[in-house]
Amino acid sequence: MQKPEKIILVGGSGYVGTAYQAYFNAHNIPFITLSHSSLNLCDKDAVLHTFKELKPNFVLNAAGYTGKPNVDAAELEKTRCLLANTILPGVLHEVCSHLKIPWGHISSGCIYTGAHPDGSGFLEEDTPNFTFRQNNCSFYSGTKAIAEEIINNGSHCYIWRLRIPFNEVDGPRNYLSKVMRYSKLLEARNSISQLDEFVRATWLCWERHIPYGVYNVVNPGSVTTSEVVAKIRQRNLVDKNFEFFKDEAEFMRVAAKVPRANCVMDCNKLLKAGIPMTEIHEAIDWALDHWRPA
Amino acid sequence: MQKPEKIILVGGSGYVGTAYQAYFNAHNIPFITLSHSSLNLCDKDAVLHTFKELKPNFVLNAAGYTGKPNVDAAELEKTRCLLANTILPGVLHEVCSHLKIPWGHISSGCIYTGAHPDGSGFLEEDTPNFTFRQNNCSFYSGTKAIAEEIINNGSHCYIWRLRIPFNEVDGPRNYLSKVMRYSKLLEARNSISQLDEFVRATWLCWERHIPYGVYNVVNPGSVTTSEVVAKIRQRNLVDKNFEFFKDEAEFMRVAAKVPRANCVMDCNKLLKAGIPMTEIHEAIDWALDHWRPA
Repeated sequence: MQKPEKIILVGGSGYVGTAYQAYFNAHNIPFITLSHSSLNLCDKDAVLHTFKELKPNFVLNAAGYTGKPNVDAAELEKTRCLLANTILPGVLHEVCSHLKIPWGHISSGCIYTGAHPDGSGFLEEDTPNFTFRQNNCSFYSGTKAIAEEIINNGSHCYIWRLRIPFNEVDGPRNYLSKVMRYSKLLEARNSISQLDEFVRATWLCWERHIPYGVYNVVNPGSVTTSEVVAKIRQRNLVDKNFEFFKDEAEFMRVAAKVPRANCVMDCNKLLKAGIPMTEIHEAIDWALDHWRPA
Repeated sequence: MQKPEKIILVGGSGYVGTAYQAYFNAHNIPFITLSHSSLNLCDKDAVLHTFKELKPNFVLNAAGYTGKPNVDAAELEKTRCLLANTILPGVLHEVCSHLKIPWGHISSGCIYTGAHPDGSGFLEEDTPNFTFRQNNCSFYSGTKAIAEEIINNGSHCYIWRLRIPFNEVDGPRNYLSKVMRYSKLLEARNSISQLDEFVRATWLCWERHIPYGVYNVVNPGSVTTSEVVAKIRQRNLVDKNFEFFKDEAEFMRVAAKVPRANCVMDCNKLLKAGIPMTEIHEAIDWALDHWRPA
């Protein structure tokens, strides 16, 4: 008989962490949440002590700071951004390596911009191209990329790259809500992640013991902002004219402080490992068909 | 009558911090040291609380992590390096800005490489060229550069750039000791800082209330490794043949894991503010003439 799961969920109160809690509860998976209020998560000795006591068989890091309402805000809270996005995974890497506890870290596709020249998505092994090292990125993306640098040599670690989460539940962090509410939109092509599928897929990685390493956990394919707008209009979900910025230059001039990482990602590594994700347009259609306004 | 000084010295136990302690003691300047053992320096609320209690009129950050025995070691302790070199100054920046406490941060000339095309030194306003953003640096230099980015908009802050400290006291962190002890040397041209002059100069910045901002606190001029070796030989301070790497490529292949930031820095801003520093060759001569072996 297998040892029962004993999971530590770090950062359980955020948009992603809350989805993990819901999933664990729905599947009767016992877990303990750790947050900054209960423990100084950036203090290696404190984390080491706690993990020694709790003896988890898996640790899941869903903590992070993206900036509120958006990534521009992180430019004004660089220290907080570094602590949450780089130091915390760095500490977990050290503690989990030391105690030989397998763990998973929620990274971000925001460390890439664009796509391959032929339009295909970035692979897990492609060097991130939207980081401090290219000097083109938001501070947020920079901190997520350094975290991957730090933990990437961990042998018992999953790095799961999430990209613009959405589902059918209206809310300030949901991509579909953002598209409905922003006064003006930027046309761009992106791979995005249905949040609940992301949670399920990452959990299956651990449950099925697929090989450790980096996985792009996005829905197969990519979608443009105007495709999403057309789907919203079809369903008359909001009563407004959707306006678009003329181009990225106007967007940067008028609405943004730092560049955004619009990018296409390839998720075939995940699919080939036997973990399914719904095709992106289908996933968006489902969410909009089951839309639950706030 | 002036308010008596009440100084908080953060990181008083390192090579630089110890020199500040000696200076303050010699000049009857009262100070309190804060270290990680007495306070979680990366916890903004804790630092805020302590500063509110202690009401310092100046805070001096001499904490940092350079790697032991050298900067290569920092590559293996990236989280620790980021905490000490970036997060801590970020927290001090936030707390000191909030409480309107003037403060000084010991940065490093290691965020530059080379010199101006005409051989002259980098000025304070030159964009650092040995950072994550150029993708050419050690992790150590990267963390020091991000710290400057974070705190550079502080209005009541000195950023003092130290560069390869030395004095007449033999020891593992003293540049002259390193030149005497390394089995093989890399020929390079550098600006360097006599440690006790650095401490005095930075203190005078505050005492004389010269304008806040960035200052290169090095001895005027620059010096090559072979010049330093010649001075050591002249005085017969060690009985050995000094061997040199053929070039930087051999050095990188044989002895180093990450590139070093050899650079020339201009300290005229400091000198023009009325703060003297001894010409570099003179300062080295004095140290070697008064050499105190370990």
